[in-house]
Amino acid sequence: MYDIIVIGAGPAGISAGIYAKSRGQKVLIIEKANVGGLIGKVSTVTHYSGIIENETGESFAKRLKEQAENSGIEIVYEDVKKVDLKSNIKVISTENNTYKAKKVIIANGTRARKLGIDGETQLDGKGIGLNAARDGKDFEGKNIYVVGGADGAVKEALYLAQFAKDVTIIHFEESLGCISEFKEKIKKTKNINLKLNSRLHAVYGIDKVESLDISDEKTGSIETISDPGCGIFVYAGTIPNTEMYTDLTLKDGFIPVDENMKTELDGVYAVGDIRVKPIRQVSTAVSDGTIAAINASL
Amino acid sequence: MYDIIVIGAGPAGISAGIYAKSRGQKVLIIEKANVGGLIGKVSTVTHYSGIIENETGESFAKRLKEQAENSGIEIVYEDVKKVDLKSNIKVISTENNTYKAKKVIIANGTRARKLGIDGETQLDGKGIGLNAARDGKDFEGKNIYVVGGADGAVKEALYLAQFAKDVTIIHFEESLGCISEFKEKIKKTKNINLKLNSRLHAVYGIDKVESLDISDEKTGSIETISDPGCGIFVYAGTIPNTEMYTDLTLKDGFIPVDENMKTELDGVYAVGDIRVKPIRQVSTAVSDGTIAAINASL
Repeated sequence: MYDIIVIGAGPAGISAGIYAKSRGQKVLIIEKANVGGLIGKVSTVTHYSGIIENETGESFAKRLKEQAENSGIEIVYEDVKKVDLKSNIKVISTENNTYKAKKVIIANGTRARKLGIDGETQLDGKGIGLNAARDGKDFEGKNIYVVGGADGAVKEALYLAQFAKDVTIIHFEESLGCISEFKEKIKKTKNINLKLNSRLHAVYGIDKVESLDISDEKTGSIETISDPGCGIFVYAGTIPNTEMYTDLTLKDGFIPVDENMKTELDGVYAVGDIRVKPIRQVSTAVSDGTIAAINASL
Repeated sequence: MYDIIVIGAGPAGISAGIYAKSRGQKVLIIEKANVGGLIGKVSTVTHYSGIIENETGESFAKRLKEQAENSGIEIVYEDVKKVDLKSNIKVISTENNTYKAKKVIIANGTRARKLGIDGETQLDGKGIGLNAARDGKDFEGKNIYVVGGADGAVKEALYLAQFAKDVTIIHFEESLGCISEFKEKIKKTKNINLKLNSRLHAVYGIDKVESLDISDEKTGSIETISDPGCGIFVYAGTIPNTEMYTDLTLKDGFIPVDENMKTELDGVYAVGDIRVKPIRQVSTAVSDGTIAAINASL
């Protein structure tokens, strides 16, 4: 029996774990994949106060992991399948184990949204469905297409431009939706082109991408581009990982909380990207974890 | 004319500056002393996600400073004397200069509370009114007294125990008010003694502390301890640096804000320890700065 179980080891979950442990709580963090969450997979961590120069998602995640381990927190790497949050004693079930706790802090964030277009599933990992930090260098000298125009997409386009022959950003709106810092950098990067008012419509190929269809938002016309061996990196938003929280009333798929990060259920908190919130940054996630853990430890 | 002036370069102010700059704002940070604020002066930074192992306040502050400078933020080191926040154009006056901005983010935190006891002013810097990280080593092999029982006091007592002959924590309550992590560490540290239900009543000496009076909270009796050359480190809470914000309605000396960190005045935000808030940690300060800057940049 734990005092507090934290589901998810991204910045919000790690911060929650560290604070709960410091308050003398018996803490377990359950993580499906790796410490760091989505931010652990980005090419560069930006704007979080105290990052080291040229911080990568990997180096940041490594430091979070060491910090959590050094503070004596128990972390298990299992996929949570089912939760019972309504009882006084909360029950968290993974494939092979059942864990119990007095309180639960939900911190298992979001996942990348798929486009749902033809060829996406068949070519997953073979030219689409890629991670810039991990796979970018495999496309050295080749053309790269980045789908999306928000901060996450444009940041990775800037990173990928270091390796690619040309980077094309495909975005459905009239202009990029990213911060001005990234817009300025895009202007200064010669091998990045913008394809606005456009959507990736389909990808074709067997072991690699051979060609792609791009549709024009205004006319509906479709352009087919033949570009054998190109890489397509999709950053088309995220979806909250809330499917298993049937005990909670969600809002647009996210978990509502009060200012103490408490959900509608006693002893259940939600922090980071999975909760209803206006600003999703590492800093706000880390703060959420701090607040939830301090309150849950009272 | 600036888009945004940030007053104070602690974690909240630096985070605000970094985010405002990334949103294309013309930003000026005005700092009275050094980047880092109060946390830049602590012996160890604890629990903030992503800190490096054995992080000191100094190393953390150095990284914050470099991060801000690398992002191209202008920082001036001047003491703000007067602010006019009610007009559309905000006017910030230091001793020698006047700065104007469309928006202001107040982030100049708190300062250490003085005890107001006999001898405190005369011996300031000569055995009392010290900083553990800076002055601790000067008291190697001598006795050290730490006044206060909250996290900040006990953390520094643990640090000072490395140098001191004996450390005595003087605290007016029946038990320490710190987190259990620190309580456990205190138990394991042989040269730390607790003097509870007690207050430092007076200090005596000329060039150094010769003796100190400690009063018993319950009986009122006063014990005089002769301990020539000892060091006294006071962590008896903090006071918000809000005296000049006469345009704002304060609450217990702190600045009330809404969830976007906006004060009652248009274009004026407050972040970090200076605002009304339940949890004062580096992580919540950094998050405050993020939220204020993103909203102020809209």
